[in-house]
Amino acid sequence: MPKEKIVESICDMETDFAQWYTDVVTKANLIDYATVRGCMFLKPYGFAIWEMMQAELDKQFKATGHENVYMPMLIPESLLQKEKDHVQGFAPEVAWVTMGGSEKLTERLCIRPTSEVLFCEHYANDIQSYRDLPKLYNQWCSVLRWEKSTRPFLRTMEFLWQEGHTAHTTAEEAEKETLQMLKIYADFCENFLAIPVIQGQKTESEKFAGAKATYTIESMMHDGKALQSGTSHNFGDGFAKAFGIQYTDKENKLQHVHQTSWGLSTRLIGGIIMVHGDNNGLVLPPKVAPIQVIIIPVAQHKEGVLEKAKELKEQLSTVFRVKIDDSDHKPGWKFSEHEMKGVPLRVEIGPKDIEQNQAVIVRRDNRDKIIVPLDNLENAIKEALEDMHQALYEKALENRQNRTHTATSIQEMKEKLDTLPGFVKAMWCKDAACEEAIKEQAKATSRCIPFAQEKIADTCCVCQKETDTMVYWGRAY
Amino acid sequence: MPKEKIVESICDMETDFAQWYTDVVTKANLIDYATVRGCMFLKPYGFAIWEMMQAELDKQFKATGHENVYMPMLIPESLLQKEKDHVQGFAPEVAWVTMGGSEKLTERLCIRPTSEVLFCEHYANDIQSYRDLPKLYNQWCSVLRWEKSTRPFLRTMEFLWQEGHTAHTTAEEAEKETLQMLKIYADFCENFLAIPVIQGQKTESEKFAGAKATYTIESMMHDGKALQSGTSHNFGDGFAKAFGIQYTDKENKLQHVHQTSWGLSTRLIGGIIMVHGDNNGLVLPPKVAPIQVIIIPVAQHKEGVLEKAKELKEQLSTVFRVKIDDSDHKPGWKFSEHEMKGVPLRVEIGPKDIEQNQAVIVRRDNRDKIIVPLDNLENAIKEALEDMHQALYEKALENRQNRTHTATSIQEMKEKLDTLPGFVKAMWCKDAACEEAIKEQAKATSRCIPFAQEKIADTCCVCQKETDTMVYWGRAY
Repeated sequence: MPKEKIVESICDMETDFAQWYTDVVTKANLIDYATVRGCMFLKPYGFAIWEMMQAELDKQFKATGHENVYMPMLIPESLLQKEKDHVQGFAPEVAWVTMGGSEKLTERLCIRPTSEVLFCEHYANDIQSYRDLPKLYNQWCSVLRWEKSTRPFLRTMEFLWQEGHTAHTTAEEAEKETLQMLKIYADFCENFLAIPVIQGQKTESEKFAGAKATYTIESMMHDGKALQSGTSHNFGDGFAKAFGIQYTDKENKLQHVHQTSWGLSTRLIGGIIMVHGDNNGLVLPPKVAPIQVIIIPVAQHKEGVLEKAKELKEQLSTVFRVKIDDSDHKPGWKFSEHEMKGVPLRVEIGPKDIEQNQAVIVRRDNRDKIIVPLDNLENAIKEALEDMHQALYEKALENRQNRTHTATSIQEMKEKLDTLPGFVKAMWCKDAACEEAIKEQAKATSRCIPFAQEKIADTCCVCQKETDTMVYWGRAY
Repeated sequence: MPKEKIVESICDMETDFAQWYTDVVTKANLIDYATVRGCMFLKPYGFAIWEMMQAELDKQFKATGHENVYMPMLIPESLLQKEKDHVQGFAPEVAWVTMGGSEKLTERLCIRPTSEVLFCEHYANDIQSYRDLPKLYNQWCSVLRWEKSTRPFLRTMEFLWQEGHTAHTTAEEAEKETLQMLKIYADFCENFLAIPVIQGQKTESEKFAGAKATYTIESMMHDGKALQSGTSHNFGDGFAKAFGIQYTDKENKLQHVHQTSWGLSTRLIGGIIMVHGDNNGLVLPPKVAPIQVIIIPVAQHKEGVLEKAKELKEQLSTVFRVKIDDSDHKPGWKFSEHEMKGVPLRVEIGPKDIEQNQAVIVRRDNRDKIIVPLDNLENAIKEALEDMHQALYEKALENRQNRTHTATSIQEMKEKLDTLPGFVKAMWCKDAACEEAIKEQAKATSRCIPFAQEKIADTCCVCQKETDTMVYWGRAY
């Protein structure tokens, strides 16, 4: 348990969670606000977290046969309009380029809010036969959506993400791909970011514009609010019909392809902060931490201390991501600084430690302090990092469990969410009117129809019609 | 020496170099044309080349202390206008966003053509003391310039690049950084891409808008035209004064910072194609080749062939980037296909080879064929790849040397460039009027004032004024 609050310059999360969040993203040096409203500058430490996420996901994508590509950032208005639902979903929130140099354009171009139409156009040109399938493409890029109100990472006009776009011969294969990618996202959240997620399907009203089905992973923040953390869409052959993407099958008959898309963005960095952070700042899960171990020499002016610290750094760097803080600041200042930045482990080494051939390891999440013989340092760090990952995951899961309620009426749902914000499991008849009533009266949206269904009651919590569908509801970022 | 032309579907470079280039970029599956004029879709094979380049450069940048960041893609018009030369250089060629959703913007935003002004604004906020310096930032992103006429890789409206932006306490440090990054680019071209380059400084009229000095690496394409392959700019304190970027030095006095920027883009992929390619398609230098070795099973229906080929693939994959082509096509088709794609080495394995415990290695550049005992395959491949890198470099250097002339008058320069296009080394008095005369009369631009100076004559090749400055001139992409 944290014993004392060392860093005084950030707001307590219990006092004002939103202010705490803002303090952490700026004081931990993750971002700076940019001059254009709603955009941010990702500073080295914030971007390094994204690079860690990219490297891990990219490895998973490639291992499952996906290839990286790059599509242009501009989309002609006529191309955006080809799929009816899609344009209705995105046209209100795009930025329009109307001038090139001093020339007024004959057709407006939007900055991609997502790239489905570009991939569809390419597929229509490029796919002829079943031999050309599947197409398993992914791109890492930035997209832009003209948002009214924004917050760093969680909702920004421009954000970084990856978008996968695939085309398949059959509906079954497309569905399999959609679920495979959802599973990769879920495993990534749980095993890499120590964030437990609920996997399920979005309701009709919450699904992606143009999709046949949208699957999602939903995580719960420390304050009980939900964060949609990654989505995977099965388009069926809807886009294929709108764009004329056809292939000749083995019987030489023309068929439409079946498509998917799936995306995960820098938004999830907001999730890491709000799931694991505490009143001393950021807490980074070891696997995604750009610095896993910070070595702090104590009484570094004394003979041999800095040398020993540097020797340890050399030794540990072959296995972990290690830095040494040999700045002129006092150890206490350094401790707070690296706690604010969420570095998982601190290794202290001073004259007394050197004398006794030992070092002190302090864990960021619970401040547990252990004294370790130098001969065993590497093993002890390995173990501490693994333990910390597990502890973070369990703490987050416990928070979610404590905040997951059930309800059999809107009134009950509202009361529980007002008392202790979180998820509410409740039955739903699949009628959009009932979903809308919950939105209005309980101020909660459907998060997903989870794969792991439970029977809370026999009837819809709104209209009391019989149903066997259980939904997670909550208030979301 | 290539013995015969196997691939019939591309134009000979001697017949029409431009058509040959277009054929190669499309037939080798590097790009597809996009719907927006002047933009391209980087297909998996084309993007994989960029990923190889990124990985190598990123390693070099980080090894020299640089950190990756991400800046927004939109720049408010008023911010772009802060540095007078810079806005004059870029304003005519930017795309303007004037609408967000259905709302007309009160101030136009341009899509970044380059990000100097964004970094400057951030530095002005972020830098206070000499302790905050140096700032050594880099970003990988796409930029957009409203070009009139475009060609894949060489000049596209949108292109991928990296842009480094640094800030330093002293003019000396900034100059050192500028030259360090130029050297990294030069080494990268020569050691990784097998492209020899001339290092030097741009003339006043050719330097970057807003820079104090621009340094460049210039390479020569197979047809004798020049390609500016990477540039590194020293800004002095010009931007710092325009944006008010100041720090307090150790004596507590306010000083302006000194800045640099440097960039290298997907344009260089065009360089790889035009330096090394031949009439059978792409030829990729081994270090940048996404596939270094293609294994082709011969008579693959015969027992044991496919198994042996797969076994070799497993074995070689631990050391090289290897693929196997076990498609239904005939070996001859496969040979041409992978020659078109520029795969450095082909390994053939058939029943007779298996019997004799050997394989056949064929080099892409010179079609040299060697028979190698399987026990020595790994070594033989390693050697062949190294030899091929060296051979490509030397061939490119020889072409450049054959096409590098000297001249002591505009007339002589023009004649030589008309006869055998290439570089002309000629003396220049540093007067812009003389440079302009060369541009008009010899249709050549100054490529650079090379670091390695030679004395071609005592006087300027235009005005015959005395000078000791030698310049490389040429016609450029």
